Amino acid sequence: MANYPEKVYLNGEILDASEAKISVFDRGFLFGDGIYEVMLQINGSFFFGKEHLDRLAECLHKINIDFDVATLPVSIDALLEASGLLEKDCLLYMQVTRGIAPRKHSFPAEIEPTVMLYALAYVLPKINNIPISVITQKDFRWHRCDIKMTSLLGNVMANDMAIQSGSFETVFHRDGIVTEASHSNIFFVKDKIVYTHPANENILNGITRELVIQLCSANGIEIHQEAIAQKDIIKMDEAFLTGTSTQIASVQKIDTHFYYQDNAIGPVTQKLQDLFLNLKNTYTTAKR
Amino acid sequence: MANYPEKVYLNGEILDASEAKISVFDRGFLFGDGIYEVMLQINGSFFFGKEHLDRLAECLHKINIDFDVATLPVSIDALLEASGLLEKDCLLYMQVTRGIAPRKHSFPAEIEPTVMLYALAYVLPKINNIPISVITQKDFRWHRCDIKMTSLLGNVMANDMAIQSGSFETVFHRDGIVTEASHSNIFFVKDKIVYTHPANENILNGITRELVIQLCSANGIEIHQEAIAQKDIIKMDEAFLTGTSTQIASVQKIDTHFYYQDNAIGPVTQKLQDLFLNLKNTYTTAKR
Repeated sequence: MANYPEKVYLNGEILDASEAKISVFDRGFLFGDGIYEVMLQINGSFFFGKEHLDRLAECLHKINIDFDVATLPVSIDALLEASGLLEKDCLLYMQVTRGIAPRKHSFPAEIEPTVMLYALAYVLPKINNIPISVITQKDFRWHRCDIKMTSLLGNVMANDMAIQSGSFETVFHRDGIVTEASHSNIFFVKDKIVYTHPANENILNGITRELVIQLCSANGIEIHQEAIAQKDIIKMDEAFLTGTSTQIASVQKIDTHFYYQDNAIGPVTQKLQDLFLNLKNTYTTAKR
Repeated sequence: MANYPEKVYLNGEILDASEAKISVFDRGFLFGDGIYEVMLQINGSFFFGKEHLDRLAECLHKINIDFDVATLPVSIDALLEASGLLEKDCLLYMQVTRGIAPRKHSFPAEIEPTVMLYALAYVLPKINNIPISVITQKDFRWHRCDIKMTSLLGNVMANDMAIQSGSFETVFHRDGIVTEASHSNIFFVKDKIVYTHPANENILNGITRELVIQLCSANGIEIHQEAIAQKDIIKMDEAFLTGTSTQIASVQKIDTHFYYQDNAIGPVTQKLQDLFLNLKNTYTTAKR
């Protein structure tokens, strides 16, 4: 994943990645004043692409950036064509910042947003069946985690803590309650019931999170949008993370506690991984 | 203040501001992964410039960006010369980001930081004697406000709330305790005693904040680094904000409460404004 794309779409132009440059006065650079999205093309269509674009629009609205996401599909097609990725499996990154202005916390009423897109060839595994380790950490991020902003230093620091400790992710708790991880949502399973933090200002409402909730409901798996207390983590039977490229990843170990040994992923997690694979296959066929 | 500089220093080069561009893969743009500083040159020397550079170094260290601030004075001199601002009153903005890499939360061990500086002609008023209005707001920012990072969307949103309500600043409270404002520190006065939040992870320890504390101690004004409860705001006799370009600004009105009418700035605030002016004059003469 850690490679550059060939092409970048920047404000209507398609450029070689090495030529894609923005002004140092872009508020994305000076203030982290922007919103981003990542979505995946699977066999020719963006997996729940409408939901990703809707969330981008919603987040831009929340921070008062005036940009019409309906203009994006044409730009995306042009980018994919230039990148040789039309209908190919790929990851699309999209970032919209408030635009360029002399540095001042307050922003001008009239300002043209900066739009940057790039696509990378990316083939998702059918099922993410790597058992992962996570650490926990007090949630020191801001209190508007529902906004998918580019002011991500807190998430970067949290992710670095995980990497430094040889883990995949950092799971946050706030006021004794488990919220989410640095770039994924977290679910727990206890007595066959699935739990995840409700969608409020303390978490980003992940598209995959929503899909898992729907898969539970549609398949007779009891699901509660209820947060788990930090002290109850070790009482859970299973835990898994969800995210656009993470899909459904089983948590084997949280801090020093093991949910299972070897590759014995829990039955509810496995069931949801199978249902998610089926959803991808069905979705791909439907090409909605 | 809201104008562009003529020249920008960017990674060793001095460029026309309109030519100063960074890669869209700079982590400053993708993640707000950087630290900044603002300092002022007054009659030929940077006012407590060493303290600003030390804080820059300290913040870079906190987020594990490896950059030697001792290289900056030579770059600053070159920039000031190119900008026609050598020894002139001006504002210097400095930003160091982690550098350029393919997008991934975790950062590579080997990465060259991006350094951007610009200077703007800027003459401070002798005393900031404009009575200001502020609003209060729950502190929804992260819990490491001691780090002067460029992931500033929370501060931008808070500042916008102030502007929208016709005020100068937003003063935050966290868990019922007044912390600081969106780009300044806050002090209160009650029965001739000065109060301000202690320097911990909930506030940025402003250089001007530290100077005011020292001025109090050196001049027989009792100062307590103790936070004021939100509910006690209206019981205070005086309140003022401090900041590099704000200097010492008297708060006339907080939400609907007036500390005074017309231009009747409180006596302790006035005394500190006078002492601060004297400090500037003395400092300038000393050219430390």
